[in-house]
Amino acid sequence: MASQEPRYVAIAQRKQAQLAAAIPAEWRLPAHVIPEGMLSISESITVGPKEYQRVGVMDIPRTCGLLTAKELEITEKYDVRGLVEEMTEGRLKAEEVVRGFCKRAAVAHQLTRCLTEPLFDRALQRARELDDHLQRTGTPVGPLHGLPVSVKDSFNIEGVDSSIGLSALAFKPATANAPLVDLLQSLGAVVIAKTNIPQTLATLDSCNHLFGRTLNPLNRQWTAGGSTGGEGALVAMRGSMVGFGTDIGGSIRVPAMCQGIYGFKPSDGRVPYGGQESGQMDGKGRIGLQPVAGPLARSVADINAIMAEIVPRAELFGEDCIPGYWPAPSVSGALSAPRNFTIGILKTDGLVTPLPPITRILNEVANTLRHTPGVEVVDIPLPSVLPKCQALAGRLMGLDDGSHMLDLIESMGEDLMPWLQGRMKRGKALTVDQLAKLQAQRAEVEREMMKMWTLSSQASSVARRVDAIICPVAPHPVPELDRYNAVGYTSTFVLLDYPAGVVPVRAFAESDLEIGRAMEEPVLGSWDKANRKLWDEKTVDRRVYLGSPLSVQVVTPKQHDHQLFRAMEIIDRAVQGRGVSSSAKL
Amino acid sequence: MASQEPRYVAIAQRKQAQLAAAIPAEWRLPAHVIPEGMLSISESITVGPKEYQRVGVMDIPRTCGLLTAKELEITEKYDVRGLVEEMTEGRLKAEEVVRGFCKRAAVAHQLTRCLTEPLFDRALQRARELDDHLQRTGTPVGPLHGLPVSVKDSFNIEGVDSSIGLSALAFKPATANAPLVDLLQSLGAVVIAKTNIPQTLATLDSCNHLFGRTLNPLNRQWTAGGSTGGEGALVAMRGSMVGFGTDIGGSIRVPAMCQGIYGFKPSDGRVPYGGQESGQMDGKGRIGLQPVAGPLARSVADINAIMAEIVPRAELFGEDCIPGYWPAPSVSGALSAPRNFTIGILKTDGLVTPLPPITRILNEVANTLRHTPGVEVVDIPLPSVLPKCQALAGRLMGLDDGSHMLDLIESMGEDLMPWLQGRMKRGKALTVDQLAKLQAQRAEVEREMMKMWTLSSQASSVARRVDAIICPVAPHPVPELDRYNAVGYTSTFVLLDYPAGVVPVRAFAESDLEIGRAMEEPVLGSWDKANRKLWDEKTVDRRVYLGSPLSVQVVTPKQHDHQLFRAMEIIDRAVQGRGVSSSAKL
Repeated sequence: MASQEPRYVAIAQRKQAQLAAAIPAEWRLPAHVIPEGMLSISESITVGPKEYQRVGVMDIPRTCGLLTAKELEITEKYDVRGLVEEMTEGRLKAEEVVRGFCKRAAVAHQLTRCLTEPLFDRALQRARELDDHLQRTGTPVGPLHGLPVSVKDSFNIEGVDSSIGLSALAFKPATANAPLVDLLQSLGAVVIAKTNIPQTLATLDSCNHLFGRTLNPLNRQWTAGGSTGGEGALVAMRGSMVGFGTDIGGSIRVPAMCQGIYGFKPSDGRVPYGGQESGQMDGKGRIGLQPVAGPLARSVADINAIMAEIVPRAELFGEDCIPGYWPAPSVSGALSAPRNFTIGILKTDGLVTPLPPITRILNEVANTLRHTPGVEVVDIPLPSVLPKCQALAGRLMGLDDGSHMLDLIESMGEDLMPWLQGRMKRGKALTVDQLAKLQAQRAEVEREMMKMWTLSSQASSVARRVDAIICPVAPHPVPELDRYNAVGYTSTFVLLDYPAGVVPVRAFAESDLEIGRAMEEPVLGSWDKANRKLWDEKTVDRRVYLGSPLSVQVVTPKQHDHQLFRAMEIIDRAVQGRGVSSSAKL
Repeated sequence: MASQEPRYVAIAQRKQAQLAAAIPAEWRLPAHVIPEGMLSISESITVGPKEYQRVGVMDIPRTCGLLTAKELEITEKYDVRGLVEEMTEGRLKAEEVVRGFCKRAAVAHQLTRCLTEPLFDRALQRARELDDHLQRTGTPVGPLHGLPVSVKDSFNIEGVDSSIGLSALAFKPATANAPLVDLLQSLGAVVIAKTNIPQTLATLDSCNHLFGRTLNPLNRQWTAGGSTGGEGALVAMRGSMVGFGTDIGGSIRVPAMCQGIYGFKPSDGRVPYGGQESGQMDGKGRIGLQPVAGPLARSVADINAIMAEIVPRAELFGEDCIPGYWPAPSVSGALSAPRNFTIGILKTDGLVTPLPPITRILNEVANTLRHTPGVEVVDIPLPSVLPKCQALAGRLMGLDDGSHMLDLIESMGEDLMPWLQGRMKRGKALTVDQLAKLQAQRAEVEREMMKMWTLSSQASSVARRVDAIICPVAPHPVPELDRYNAVGYTSTFVLLDYPAGVVPVRAFAESDLEIGRAMEEPVLGSWDKANRKLWDEKTVDRRVYLGSPLSVQVVTPKQHDHQLFRAMEIIDRAVQGRGVSSSAKL
């Protein structure tokens, strides 16, 4: 019997034992605190949408009794700047801050399977070094002194696995840090854990044979999203102040949307991306579509606080980064009173018509912005080339034959995850001529898309007109497990290298259900048809969406990353001012 | 007999007739003014190094009698800002300025074959429109109102051929302007001509079957360089205020060096590159090595004046451009008193040892800088990966099978130019796996090269140490026709995307000859061996270099383009202050 067991099984068991051993016994949740129906790791992978009951675990860190009152305060009271200030001014020790977040991360993990590599011991060791340094020298190590952060499993950390959920890559610790990790550490931040991802990194449910499925802490029926799903769950549960993910098809923005937090996909070259295990051939991003790294956080201010430190230093750490300017947060605070800020509303990508609650939330935000002083709102006509973007991005992502990843998976006898079955297969690599042609098409699309931002396409008087646009993150609400649809609304802005972020707006309400009312818009094609299954009352009970976060995507022109932060801040304040945002914090 | 003639011959004759017809009869030089030995176009292509006698034509525009005193003043007295000011303040008409430069360009062409498409009629028409606009509105059309500029033949201009010297592409006028042309026109600049280039754009002698060989106006024995050779000759002869070329292996910097003028190869994304005919498959640059566009000019101030207008607007015109900041020239004037500016001296690429006059000029400049207040000079140890760069750049340039270009050439029965014979052949295209591997190697090289710029490679304390480096443009002086060697010293900084410029220093003097003294350094390899043929008294008469411009290359980190301008300004002023620079203006 044992000899017929696939090779990955024993490795997965060792990996799970390693993970469990990294969580101190005194941080383990009592069994009665863990909601019923927390399936085993292998069951969690294959469970279907119907099998999980609605269960949210957001309150458990507060109620479980493991965290002291002070640890609850440390993990709940502060934003990034406030927490760092407490430490640099000596009111909190880095060690107690890091311990509080490690403990909370451990709790979050036991409820959502969000971690892959807890790094609690070395994080506490580092925190003590920071405390010593501050006491000895009177100065903090850096502007993020003591800040607990986490990174997606793919980022290399010396001495730690970057298995990305593949048994073929387990127990092969990295020999050097990723440049982003070096950069974060130079700023004084402390990496407390690495987090869970999907098999292949190319799906939107974070689920693999080594670590199982990450669950959405708001409601296990909903996907946690991916590929940075572990970060989404961990940051939402306040187990980390800021999480770092990567995004090629939406892998930062989708989990942000699914957990109702903020995600920021920068332009290429703003945050060091290198030093990651991708399971792909090296150099693929440079000839096809380049993924980018970026933060997930619980506020726009936290995104600003972290980007303000990373962007100006990125070029010194990552060979893939360019010089960057980012006004200090105090300066941008002054800037943030909007003056003649023009926001465009882009309602559809022309390929998949957003489901009614998505259109509604966009209209609501547009209306709120129309009443925001200093903001001008304009409707953006569908750019003619926009419907081409999803397919073009997809072909660039699939330029090789896929064998590198599939060899890794098959070598250990792993099955493909449910969502990947039928979707992931060996193909034929493009020729360099075909690849060059695709990139030339991309240049044409980019060129045509420039018009979306300008008042006039006449060469003699080109001027910027639109500062930012808002559009859906996805054409559907947060779906049930393994039901996420196409990623055109997110992958498009990697194809175009437009920075794009996610701002949560409010929770899905009874009034969004429209029970009995079907969509009237004509079906645009197969992608559109598939999307409607998430709204068709014959194939879904719409009530599953009740309470789920509804978000908008905010986008600015290429390399205007600080402008994206400003736009997100303007929109967030406008929405919060309307008093709807808090309801999204379920 | 006629039926056996290759197809290109008749097309070339038509093209030459078209070119001649675009030069008004009254602008034609009398035969006696044209130096003896101006061979026919077809002879000019095949002539060997020994066949041309030393002849310089720089003085002929002054002495030929075609240009009026005022036209000589217009074309000789001003720099870019001064000339524009004369027009915007009404002291000169755009029409008379443009006429003066067109006439001088026509003269330059008759002495060097620098033009491919004279655009004199439309330039004069545009100049009159500018004059009308200024008179009518009281304001100039843009910050470069009336400035006569020229562009390499590859840039598309609506209604004009972009033949790039290939008969297969002749008489197929472009249907739209290149974005750079639109940008220049929006600034008020007037494109007066397109200029000559080499067959394939991939050699360093600007020589093809349609337009023949561009001659170096300083001395016909020396190559004019390439691929932006026509611009090099035209700008040196003051037939245009600023010329725009492109550079992948050195195609802006090499002609600048050959003519003793200034060349500026920006980083990718600073100047719109798109809308050019390359003779290559579309999209090749995006998967391999991306060429860039940039200016050739007669002073660092002129490069600053033009880049200050282009860089901040580039993103509105070119989909291949990113947002750019460039302080206004007046501001940078204030900045230009150097304060703690560190310049590194990089003496070799480790692959080809520079010939003695090249090492000497570098040492001279280093010594001058050591005595320049506010400048610190440091020696740069050879980066371990630098010797790999030339081959890596070469492989990325040759990623396809070469058939696109060779099909164009062979379809019309054109022979390959002398330098290309044996070097240019059909090959095997890379697979996408091989291509990705090369790009991954490039990332490693980039990463290793970052250390050249920083004080410490320790992650905890990374800081910029070196602001700019100087190094050779080529490991040899300006060579005779068809004798240019490897381009590793220039292509390396396209591979790395480091901005790089050329500053002329002084003329090659008797004391540089070292007659009878051989190089003592050990031969490093085949490239090094080939280079020594340009110094070995058995294969060259070193006296051929007497009077040729000696230049240095200036390089800054990736995307630090304004810093490159500052470094060039500091070096230029230091060298001029020493009183050696004027001797380079032969």
